[in-house]
Amino acid sequence: MPASPALDKVLDRIDAMMPEATGRLLTLLRIPSISTDPAHAADCAAAADWLVDELSGLGFEAASRPTPGQPAVVAHGGSGGPHLLFYAHYDVQPVDPVELWSRDPFDPAIEETPDGAVIRGRGASDDKGQMMTFIEACRAWRDVHGQLPARLTLFLEGEEESGSPSLVPFLRAHADELRADLALICDTGLFDPETPAITTMLRGLVGEQVTIHAADKDLHSGMFGGLARNPIHVLARILAALHDDSGRVTLPGFYDGVDELPPEVAAQWRALGFDAAAFLGAVGLSAPAGEAGRTGLEMIWSRPTCEVNGITGGYTGPGFKTVLPAEASAKVSFRLVGRQDPEKVRAAFRAHVAAMLPPDCRAEFQPHGGSPAAQMAIGHPAFEAARQALSVEWPRPAAFIGCGGSIPVAGYFRTELGMDSMLVGFARDDDRIHSPNEKYHMSSFHRGIRSWARILDAVSGGRHAA
Amino acid sequence: MPASPALDKVLDRIDAMMPEATGRLLTLLRIPSISTDPAHAADCAAAADWLVDELSGLGFEAASRPTPGQPAVVAHGGSGGPHLLFYAHYDVQPVDPVELWSRDPFDPAIEETPDGAVIRGRGASDDKGQMMTFIEACRAWRDVHGQLPARLTLFLEGEEESGSPSLVPFLRAHADELRADLALICDTGLFDPETPAITTMLRGLVGEQVTIHAADKDLHSGMFGGLARNPIHVLARILAALHDDSGRVTLPGFYDGVDELPPEVAAQWRALGFDAAAFLGAVGLSAPAGEAGRTGLEMIWSRPTCEVNGITGGYTGPGFKTVLPAEASAKVSFRLVGRQDPEKVRAAFRAHVAAMLPPDCRAEFQPHGGSPAAQMAIGHPAFEAARQALSVEWPRPAAFIGCGGSIPVAGYFRTELGMDSMLVGFARDDDRIHSPNEKYHMSSFHRGIRSWARILDAVSGGRHAA
Repeated sequence: MPASPALDKVLDRIDAMMPEATGRLLTLLRIPSISTDPAHAADCAAAADWLVDELSGLGFEAASRPTPGQPAVVAHGGSGGPHLLFYAHYDVQPVDPVELWSRDPFDPAIEETPDGAVIRGRGASDDKGQMMTFIEACRAWRDVHGQLPARLTLFLEGEEESGSPSLVPFLRAHADELRADLALICDTGLFDPETPAITTMLRGLVGEQVTIHAADKDLHSGMFGGLARNPIHVLARILAALHDDSGRVTLPGFYDGVDELPPEVAAQWRALGFDAAAFLGAVGLSAPAGEAGRTGLEMIWSRPTCEVNGITGGYTGPGFKTVLPAEASAKVSFRLVGRQDPEKVRAAFRAHVAAMLPPDCRAEFQPHGGSPAAQMAIGHPAFEAARQALSVEWPRPAAFIGCGGSIPVAGYFRTELGMDSMLVGFARDDDRIHSPNEKYHMSSFHRGIRSWARILDAVSGGRHAA
Repeated sequence: MPASPALDKVLDRIDAMMPEATGRLLTLLRIPSISTDPAHAADCAAAADWLVDELSGLGFEAASRPTPGQPAVVAHGGSGGPHLLFYAHYDVQPVDPVELWSRDPFDPAIEETPDGAVIRGRGASDDKGQMMTFIEACRAWRDVHGQLPARLTLFLEGEEESGSPSLVPFLRAHADELRADLALICDTGLFDPETPAITTMLRGLVGEQVTIHAADKDLHSGMFGGLARNPIHVLARILAALHDDSGRVTLPGFYDGVDELPPEVAAQWRALGFDAAAFLGAVGLSAPAGEAGRTGLEMIWSRPTCEVNGITGGYTGPGFKTVLPAEASAKVSFRLVGRQDPEKVRAAFRAHVAAMLPPDCRAEFQPHGGSPAAQMAIGHPAFEAARQALSVEWPRPAAFIGCGGSIPVAGYFRTELGMDSMLVGFARDDDRIHSPNEKYHMSSFHRGIRSWARILDAVSGGRHAA
């Protein structure tokens, strides 16, 4: 599929404007828009306002729209062709343990590495850098052609990293405004640095915080130890019992709705040549630690999981304190696949905790989001058009892949707006998203912008051909 | 045993000086001498200096003596009769969770409660209030008789709450100076508010911090979850396996050297009428949670325990972070009895951890003190003299009891100085030591001072009789 002359000029324009595009991304990365931390609410608002300014400058009608939490940015622009809704998020993860960062997470910079130039800073990859690939593609198109490449609505969320509490109400309240022919979501990754990907399977997510309460105050372990209930012991037993020795989750009914991979998909994944040892080797590990008898890609793409994401109880400062704490708590999350029901999984977890509670203990639960897994409508013609466009831009052909992470918005676009989604993103596995020293490869950023220009040209039917 | 006229005048003097004695204790409690926290080293030195000033004013030759950690206070004074070494400690526990305190832990005050007046503040009971009972008894004696009641050496430690790292080297370096006929240790409690006690059995203590390391950085649970090892899961399984379903510790050899209680001691303890339900009810619990088939007093006095005192891993802040952490750690302590060997217990714990480590995990250990259990030499005549003196001062006769906490110094006085110890203290079970809102009953303080005056009179043979 040769590029149209209209597209060629846009691609040239992208190459020429990379210094300025990089500068704009660095500016956005300097805003510490951590949505889960109430102390950063003003920063989230500032990031939204910055985006409104940028988009207004590109001819969009853009506004920061209030929600009960962090604002959403909605922008409309362009005309003709299919109506496309672009989704990304401007909020970022917390930065702790901050002492493990090689630089201030919100003082980003371009760093030369043996693997090429990277943009280092919180949100560089997840998801500000990815979001800006699309916005910069729009900018280049408008610079060259004086107009946007299609009828576009941008919906930029500010609560993705904190469970998206306002998302569904916002979609319902503005359904007519946000409904489009197809959603484009940019929050996923490449298959490998040379192989672009369209993600067609997404795991769902259920989060639960559980706190075990025992005595009504912290106790001295000398005076009470051996007689009084220790809630850390109770919590440890509850968490240890979540998996059996083969790595399977023990909650009754947990695997209801989990299907085996269709043979043709399994064959396609085998062809990708995923090297679990290399994938794990990049983070200092060597051996798959999940369900016995499953391949690495199954473990991260098509099998459900249960992970404890945080635990705390008793004295955790320097030195030692011989205390029997009054409480201990854990944050537990489940990645869901197939037709697993988030609320049934939540209920099964709570029942597991309740069944293991000894006398004098009380469990308190705090839910943190719940979304089912999603399967994309790959029969939509945009998928094949995008696959071909991506295959031209990158060294290797594009693949349809799964994704271990959760992008709940894709499911909500389907259930709330009746709209299909296509997930295209340019992150690499080693981008350290959610971790210290997050980065985004300059090649992800540059080729990502070019990829969107190609996809927009292909999906809109090349109607801008000179 | 009627009090001598010399003693009567001292007791009257104590009653008259209680306002000033209370003021001095409040002054000492205002110094935040938290020994385990390096940020409070200057406060520990200030508390030591304050004690040196007080003791010098009573005619002691007193000095703050440097150690590699916090200083020790050593004071010599008086003459004649048996040489007695008094031990207490001026350092205190940390105060977190500080938000659960009803007042600033280091802005102490006298509070009227339905149960009588209490002195509220960190260290009020453990151990500054207890320490001052002895010093104020010395003061009253000197006020009345112009001299101290016996040949006394005071040894006031500043590292008791942080594992006493400098204690043994200090005892060895100053053995001739510190060796006396008998040590008096004031860091224990009453049996109940009306029944004074001489503690004759002390549990030992072994502390271990274990950190499980997995990946070399925190990971995104969506990208890696199900494939990469989660060290919180590993730690939970290790901790959950420390006890069996009957509450026994599973470490091989753990119960070596643990004897059944002699029938006569068991009978004496039964006679004390310990009400486990009431003891636990005071802290919001109801049911003994320790080894099946053991009485409440056995659980806290004569049986060994294993308790997790702190645990931390992953994201523990507000909201949720779907992270697979690089590491997770726990602080674990063992209370020892009989002839259990602290280093064998430590080795058995480390072997237990090592045996449960899956591939890609590494365990790091940090030891925090280790001391065997201690059995006092109750045949020493001072025990019977003190028992009679205490029985006169308090509503009910004094009892010989066990203690669940560890007072390692008693063991070291025996092994390093060849000296027996007698443990007398006035704390109540509900003093909330090591917890928020620690307090010391004014009656503990007042009767405690009077008790020491009586004990010193009895042990020194009443040689000050007018």
